[in-house]
Amino acid sequence: MRIALGIEYDGSAFKGWQVQRHDVSTVQAAVEAALTRVAAHPVRVVCAGRTDTGVHAVGQVVHFDTVAQRDPRNWVLGANVNLPPTVAVSWAQSVDEAFHARFSAISRRYRYLILERPARSSLLAGRATWSHRPLDSDTMHLAGQALVGTHDFSSYRALGCQAKSPVRTLHSLDVVRRGDLIEIGVHANAFLHHMIRNIAGVLLAIGRAERPVEWAGEVLALRDRTLGGVTAPPDGLYFERVWYPDEFSIPAPSTFPLFA
Amino acid sequence: MRIALGIEYDGSAFKGWQVQRHDVSTVQAAVEAALTRVAAHPVRVVCAGRTDTGVHAVGQVVHFDTVAQRDPRNWVLGANVNLPPTVAVSWAQSVDEAFHARFSAISRRYRYLILERPARSSLLAGRATWSHRPLDSDTMHLAGQALVGTHDFSSYRALGCQAKSPVRTLHSLDVVRRGDLIEIGVHANAFLHHMIRNIAGVLLAIGRAERPVEWAGEVLALRDRTLGGVTAPPDGLYFERVWYPDEFSIPAPSTFPLFA
Repeated sequence: MRIALGIEYDGSAFKGWQVQRHDVSTVQAAVEAALTRVAAHPVRVVCAGRTDTGVHAVGQVVHFDTVAQRDPRNWVLGANVNLPPTVAVSWAQSVDEAFHARFSAISRRYRYLILERPARSSLLAGRATWSHRPLDSDTMHLAGQALVGTHDFSSYRALGCQAKSPVRTLHSLDVVRRGDLIEIGVHANAFLHHMIRNIAGVLLAIGRAERPVEWAGEVLALRDRTLGGVTAPPDGLYFERVWYPDEFSIPAPSTFPLFA
Repeated sequence: MRIALGIEYDGSAFKGWQVQRHDVSTVQAAVEAALTRVAAHPVRVVCAGRTDTGVHAVGQVVHFDTVAQRDPRNWVLGANVNLPPTVAVSWAQSVDEAFHARFSAISRRYRYLILERPARSSLLAGRATWSHRPLDSDTMHLAGQALVGTHDFSSYRALGCQAKSPVRTLHSLDVVRRGDLIEIGVHANAFLHHMIRNIAGVLLAIGRAERPVEWAGEVLALRDRTLGGVTAPPDGLYFERVWYPDEFSIPAPSTFPLFA
């Protein structure tokens, strides 16, 4: 029997998603340990998108196979009792065996939060990237439009990125300001390693007027990571949502009140 | 020379505001240690309102006296370098010796956040009180109107509350829903110990339809804490803002993006 779960986590508590050595705290290890207790047999999960150290998730999706007979409600309650406060299962659902959390996904959306204030925040520490310099969010939004569409994103992928193709389709990129909080929302079919943090790094430099508005598109055209911008910190990055074909009836995540 | 500071903190990291024994982590102790390093002489601070374990602050205000000559900017930067990530100084300002963070205050506003979801949240753990049962926020708002005005709040004060008078003037109480987040905003001249958490406890019982809408006013009229509701958890409580007479020119805190 195949089960899908929605998972929300505070990435600042973990060394990323993927299981590493036994002494390294990862979200996957925490989730598998909790589900293993509920199932009473070893459980391995597959996620929609692996996240790096410090990156949060509002709507991560995983699947796993089990012989245990449990109601969806009992998977949620049982997992949450066995998880630390920094990880929570939002929903559970039995799914067709054709469902694969990663390969069935059609598209993903991330949000990147930036707090523009003279002094750092404590309540948003690790939850938003702090900029003590003013940012022009309208110019950042305009600059980002050069990235929308199907492109070779070599200039925006990590040097160590292992994806076979650097081509991705970016459906939308929106930069929105609410008071001193600036949000970059990015929706694409899939993402390369560090792609959003590298996009955020370029948009931050443009927002501070260190680079012209055309620079985001110029960097893209170069197809060379070594000519791109700095990788922005993971603090403000949230894996928001994954879309699947309607036939799988995968629920949308709850809205996260920090998002626009 | 007297200096006023605005302070934001994540209360889940501390055993409340007030200095206790040396081995107990309190916000006051962290702030005094940081300012003592910046001033290069021992600093004692007086706050506008002491908060309990787990209670957050967006706009706590303190004052202290010093012989050190520092720019406001250097008090902010110097303190923040010496504070843990869970506490931040937002602004500093030299003030008249007539200014007293507690006694000069005219009124205070708190917000209490409740997350209404079937499963707990990880990203809002410690930042909002979780209710897995549905709440009728309109009825909660209506119920709360019985508390607005000048009243004897004996039924809503902690049994150990040391204030001389149980009479307080509540300027407004508003219950607002945004999606699954419900916010209780309370503005009063001053508050008794546990007053907001006791109000939240009564409004939560009314929101769950365990009690009728009139119950908030009935409890008030009884003037007896032992006949009141349970004290709601500290997780969702934020000390938002303190108002002072205009002549002191105390700045407003930054807006906190979780608030309505």
